[in-house]
Amino acid sequence: MTSRRHLLTGAAAAGLGAAAGAGLVAAAGADNAVPAAAVEPLTTGTATVPFHGPRQAGIAEDPPAHAAFVAFTLPAGTDRRALARMMRLLTDDARRLTQGVPALGDTDATLAPLPSRLTVTFGLGPGLYRAAGLKAPVADLPQFRIDRLERRWSGGDLLLQICADDPLTVAHTQRMLIKDARPFAAVRWVQQGFRRSPGVQAPEHTQRNVMGQLDGTANPRGPEIDPAVWNADGSTTLVVRRVRAEIETWDILSVADKENAVGRRLDSGAPLSGAQEHDEPDFTKLDSSGLPAMPDFSHVTRAHVTDPALKILRRPYNYDGVPNAAGQPDSGLIFASYQKDIARQFVPIQLRLAEKDLLNEWITPIGSAVFAVPPGCDEDGWIGEQVLG
Amino acid sequence: MTSRRHLLTGAAAAGLGAAAGAGLVAAAGADNAVPAAAVEPLTTGTATVPFHGPRQAGIAEDPPAHAAFVAFTLPAGTDRRALARMMRLLTDDARRLTQGVPALGDTDATLAPLPSRLTVTFGLGPGLYRAAGLKAPVADLPQFRIDRLERRWSGGDLLLQICADDPLTVAHTQRMLIKDARPFAAVRWVQQGFRRSPGVQAPEHTQRNVMGQLDGTANPRGPEIDPAVWNADGSTTLVVRRVRAEIETWDILSVADKENAVGRRLDSGAPLSGAQEHDEPDFTKLDSSGLPAMPDFSHVTRAHVTDPALKILRRPYNYDGVPNAAGQPDSGLIFASYQKDIARQFVPIQLRLAEKDLLNEWITPIGSAVFAVPPGCDEDGWIGEQVLG
Ligand code: HEM
Ligand code: HEM
Repeated sequence: MTSRRHLLTGAAAAGLGAAAGAGLVAAAGADNAVPAAAVEPLTTGTATVPFHGPRQAGIAEDPPAHAAFVAFTLPAGTDRRALARMMRLLTDDARRLTQGVPALGDTDATLAPLPSRLTVTFGLGPGLYRAAGLKAPVADLPQFRIDRLERRWSGGDLLLQICADDPLTVAHTQRMLIKDARPFAAVRWVQQGFRRSPGVQAPEHTQRNVMGQLDGTANPRGPEIDPAVWNADGSTTLVVRRVRAEIETWDILSVADKENAVGRRLDSGAPLSGAQEHDEPDFTKLDSSGLPAMPDFSHVTRAHVTDPALKILRRPYNYDGVPNAAGQPDSGLIFASYQKDIARQFVPIQLRLAEKDLLNEWITPIGSAVFAVPPGCDEDGWIGEQVLG
Repeated sequence: MTSRRHLLTGAAAAGLGAAAGAGLVAAAGADNAVPAAAVEPLTTGTATVPFHGPRQAGIAEDPPAHAAFVAFTLPAGTDRRALARMMRLLTDDARRLTQGVPALGDTDATLAPLPSRLTVTFGLGPGLYRAAGLKAPVADLPQFRIDRLERRWSGGDLLLQICADDPLTVAHTQRMLIKDARPFAAVRWVQQGFRRSPGVQAPEHTQRNVMGQLDGTANPRGPEIDPAVWNADGSTTLVVRRVRAEIETWDILSVADKENAVGRRLDSGAPLSGAQEHDEPDFTKLDSSGLPAMPDFSHVTRAHVTDPALKILRRPYNYDGVPNAAGQPDSGLIFASYQKDIARQFVPIQLRLAEKDLLNEWITPIGSAVFAVPPGCDEDGWIGEQVLG
């Protein structure tokens, strides 16, 4: 985080414009940041996030409003040389597009300006390492008892996480990257998601998800991100779970039942043991009837982690597809989390939740994938060079 | 337009806040408007568009970033009384939600604040009039030779056009309205689309579509909207066409071929006969080789209308679905147009385009629907009362 923030501040000094700089710094998660938009002219369209650096972008920054997660399958017989060629090509596309510059051979160059904080983050699946004849640093997740996984949302040898504050920028980037990946890999799945539009809320405010909850409160922020996410070499890992929300039954619950399931108030996001959103949940506190104020099986009680090195950085997006003829929504979360080590950090949390979490009655994992996220690169490098170079 | 602009100015005076007022007035289409965001704090989330008035909202205002077009089918046996009950209920939902107030019985009330310029616009299909035993003011379109219509994107007895600058607001509104419509009607299709995010461009700038073109240049604006769109009673009509873009072949065209197909420059949007985006196309001008500067069969040449009463107000949204395994995009326009009279205004243009339009090689209509758009209503009224009351 610190190093990326340095990069951001550096970018502003290097002439990206004071307003863009202010926006990016505010977005980097400082609690007391003045919302840039309150004092600066709007630069939502021209704002850029630096592509180069020891760590990939698209992880520690405040998530932009729109995302496409694009997973690919490698054809049989793919070798390390082909993979290196593909990653060189896609890195070059990403380094240009994120800075508002058309890709080489961009067939819709008019859509490249206005990057709107575009980031492209690369994840390498277990299958990519197998193809390259290497031992994978990530392994498929164990099956959890709550899982109802569908093949069409699961797995993947390569992942592109494309995020920007503008949906047309995401669409163009997705199109260009898929086109350049085509000679090397087939599209396995694409998941498109959203958060609040730019400017709808100040970046330091927690957003609501499609279930109406404040989502992100206990996420590591600022310096807390470091011990949870970054390995010394700048690498990390990514879990993507597609989690369907059972809106039909969720919607008929009372507010009290909804709050009980999560362990936090629906309006303020405060833990049921406290008064303010950012109060630490107190799992020992009893309510007036002598029961734990934080229910034993609430989502927060079960998911809570105290060791800073065992937390995960959640970066979820909402999805809202087309409802069926009966009008039942197709909504949920594209739950994405970054952590140093999936087995040590993500799996224990997901195991505890799978075993007992009141929220399970209203959420169902229907997709799952894991990726190693290699370090960033500099001007002459490419993402994945430490693995495939 | 004038009356809605009055409403908007009135709303600002009535205390919606100076910034929201300025934003809405700037959005009302004045060419020389100072972008509100350059001088005012950000109010993207709290901005509202008045629901009440002689004309429905969601038509003359600058289109917000996100839209869901939701079409319903009435079950056999629906009568006028049931329709009136349904319209009363949905009007009440819309009047609350557009002002950032939860619907009655809102099962996710935390998602109602931050309306982000939410509008809900009601369209009544030919089938609704039939069910009510009334003569419909709109008729299904003739079949055009370019049409490859799919049932899943066509027709509809009732349409809700839900627009807002925030995708979560659209999702919540869609969910609540569908829920309340359920006892009366089945969901026929839902089409979700986008334009640039709020703040990415100043509202007076023409936006690009998924084909990379500046789209909207010749649209009526300000006082030109009146003769094209509004009947004396405040009613109008809506055509929704889902038009697939054949991105694969479009993308491999040269810039010159792309410009020829449309009759405008890709970068500036200027007509091929001129230099600036808003230069009037000159269909008599010859280029250096003695050919018409505006190709006879370009999209603009064929679509151009001079009589202000025969123009249409286009209000398209981009769509970008999930690409197939080969990586071919599922992109195009949810082309929506408002006009007084479909037969006099829309049909002749679509006929000329269907007959000969270079762009036809790269666009294919795959959905089509028409709706009568009844006048607006006041605090005690409901949308459709002149028809069903
Ligand atoms: C649709 C799926 C999910 C929903 C709607 C959801 C919702 C929430 C909410 C409302 C909170 C409390 C506010 C906050 O701190 O963000 C929360 C906290 C949390 N969730 Fe989830 N969640 C989902 C899935 C998951 C999954 C799959 C995991 C990991 C396996 C997870 C791990 C956590 C963690 C670690 C916390 C913070 C707990 C703490 O320390 O207070 N969640 N979630
Ligand atoms: C994917 C489908 C379409 C695309 C990509 C498209 C694109 C364009 C573009 C780039 C322009 C020039 C800039 C402007 O004035 O906005 C334009 C103009 C226009 N289009 Fe389309 N269009 C599509 C479908 C349609 C349809 C279905 C109609 C009506 C049947 C239509 C009617 C018009 C009209 C009336 C103009 C203005 C012509 C003038 O007076 O200069 N378009 N369109």
